[in-house]
Amino acid sequence: MSDLVEELLAGKHRALARVISKIEDRSPGYRDIVSELHRHTGGADVIGVTGSPGAGKSTLVDKVAAAYRDRDLTVGVIAIDPSSPFTGGAVLGDRIRMGSNTGDMDVFFRSMSARGSLGGLSTATTDAVTALDAFGKDKIIIETVGAGQNEIDIVRTADTVAVLVPPDSGDDVQMLKAGILEIADLFAVNKADLDGADRTVQQLTEMLHYGDGRSDSDDGWEPPVIETVANSGEGVEAFTSAIDEHLSYLDESGQRDEKKRSRYEAEIRTLLRADANELLAAELAARGGIDQFVDDVFTRGSDPYTVVEEIVAPLRTCLERERE
Amino acid sequence: MSDLVEELLAGKHRALARVISKIEDRSPGYRDIVSELHRHTGGADVIGVTGSPGAGKSTLVDKVAAAYRDRDLTVGVIAIDPSSPFTGGAVLGDRIRMGSNTGDMDVFFRSMSARGSLGGLSTATTDAVTALDAFGKDKIIIETVGAGQNEIDIVRTADTVAVLVPPDSGDDVQMLKAGILEIADLFAVNKADLDGADRTVQQLTEMLHYGDGRSDSDDGWEPPVIETVANSGEGVEAFTSAIDEHLSYLDESGQRDEKKRSRYEAEIRTLLRADANELLAAELAARGGIDQFVDDVFTRGSDPYTVVEEIVAPLRTCLERERE
Repeated sequence: MSDLVEELLAGKHRALARVISKIEDRSPGYRDIVSELHRHTGGADVIGVTGSPGAGKSTLVDKVAAAYRDRDLTVGVIAIDPSSPFTGGAVLGDRIRMGSNTGDMDVFFRSMSARGSLGGLSTATTDAVTALDAFGKDKIIIETVGAGQNEIDIVRTADTVAVLVPPDSGDDVQMLKAGILEIADLFAVNKADLDGADRTVQQLTEMLHYGDGRSDSDDGWEPPVIETVANSGEGVEAFTSAIDEHLSYLDESGQRDEKKRSRYEAEIRTLLRADANELLAAELAARGGIDQFVDDVFTRGSDPYTVVEEIVAPLRTCLERERE
Repeated sequence: MSDLVEELLAGKHRALARVISKIEDRSPGYRDIVSELHRHTGGADVIGVTGSPGAGKSTLVDKVAAAYRDRDLTVGVIAIDPSSPFTGGAVLGDRIRMGSNTGDMDVFFRSMSARGSLGGLSTATTDAVTALDAFGKDKIIIETVGAGQNEIDIVRTADTVAVLVPPDSGDDVQMLKAGILEIADLFAVNKADLDGADRTVQQLTEMLHYGDGRSDSDDGWEPPVIETVANSGEGVEAFTSAIDEHLSYLDESGQRDEKKRSRYEAEIRTLLRADANELLAAELAARGGIDQFVDDVFTRGSDPYTVVEEIVAPLRTCLERERE
């Protein structure tokens, strides 16, 4: 076992931070570290919090983390920032927030960005959760900026997914249908003191009641709609209680294990895809790069399908020979 | 050469329709057909039209197609429908439209949906363009419903990309920044007779003037902003002229060939990825499926990285041996 892993398992936050940096940067050896850490995981509850920008996720997550601390639970927060130029404000916000929390290291804040591809960010998030879990954090919160498909893919790996909806967001409620509704285990209408909150709660409740969108999910759980005012702390207790209830429900129904299995399956498939792509890139490089193939296609000496078959055929033959 | 390919090259629309169906369904043999057709391509201009729902794409595309017909040019239109439950209306619209155009087969309309993955839809669109190009269509229009990342990926394969913006769509103009601005070669503010059109034109012009978003594109082309009223036909001539100008610019600057090369490169990479995934799926199946691996990870007997290395290692060894 590497010293770094040993230090992390011994509860050194500095080691945890270094491991997550290695994961984020894909530094040499990060795979071995995550491999070693995996056997020490399984103790944490993973909570995903998503919602459109401006829904008040940061504030609510801060309050939830504080509530857990009051219960003597340790907390890790990973704020995912897809590094779009349009989330500049939010990124800054997260960074400032990180600084403001350094006083209480049992709430370990970490902002991660998509340095590589967004697909890579999803894997990096999973690996960071592994690190926090192995470290021994009781509660791990994944907070995403934005609510696009990539954010959905990231946050759906959590045990419990909370979707924040700002009040009077008729359009947003419509948008929710397009993917978020199926993954939400609970909704919070945040800033519930603002106009339109009642209408949003009603819209959500109706949508859930009529089974609109969650139809393919027959897990027997009915997502509650909680009203919160993160700034004042109002509703935060109801929110954390709803998370507790969902986690208990997962355990009692045996769905937590199911979820974990399908999460591991997705993880294996994602890593397989990434490795296969790397192998092909190496194969392309060994054959002198892609340019000559592009030339062949451009001059109509070949075509994309023929070129690809030419590159893939040796792999296929290889594997078939191996299996005999 | 197969009969179907021969008939397509002989100008039989029925054969064209059957080939595109095969492409859409991934019917056995479609790869060979596309391979054969590739050498007959290169004569068509490919125009992508995208924009948020309700921007009036269908109507404008109809008028543009009619304008081309008036110039004795043949036209193929592929309307891409991501088959989201939320575009139900648009899909229906496209289908009705297809029917209404059967009288003039030189405007060949075809609506394609994402039966498989959206990634697959992008490949299918490229293949359908190959078929239309080999058939001899002078102008091929790819029209996408919606303006998400998937639609952007599909439409960016065109020589010229037109982005339609509805008037008074302050939010949409903001949204444009997130990916569409970089790929737009021209903008049309459609429904320019409605309130707010002037403001939208001004916003777009300012955004383009200050280089906001198109900064990484130093192709020397300044996207014009055209006002159109597709319903009445107003501005359609200016719109098609702008397309003509951009196509001429591409030819004169040598960028058309560059674009084609990078399109072929992207196509090869996409197909390689798809084939690699298939190989891995076969390898997983040959090893008795993914479940036992998931079990190992779940029981902490192994971990995702170790499992994946176990599956990928034989491929890597195989390829390295091959290269020696």
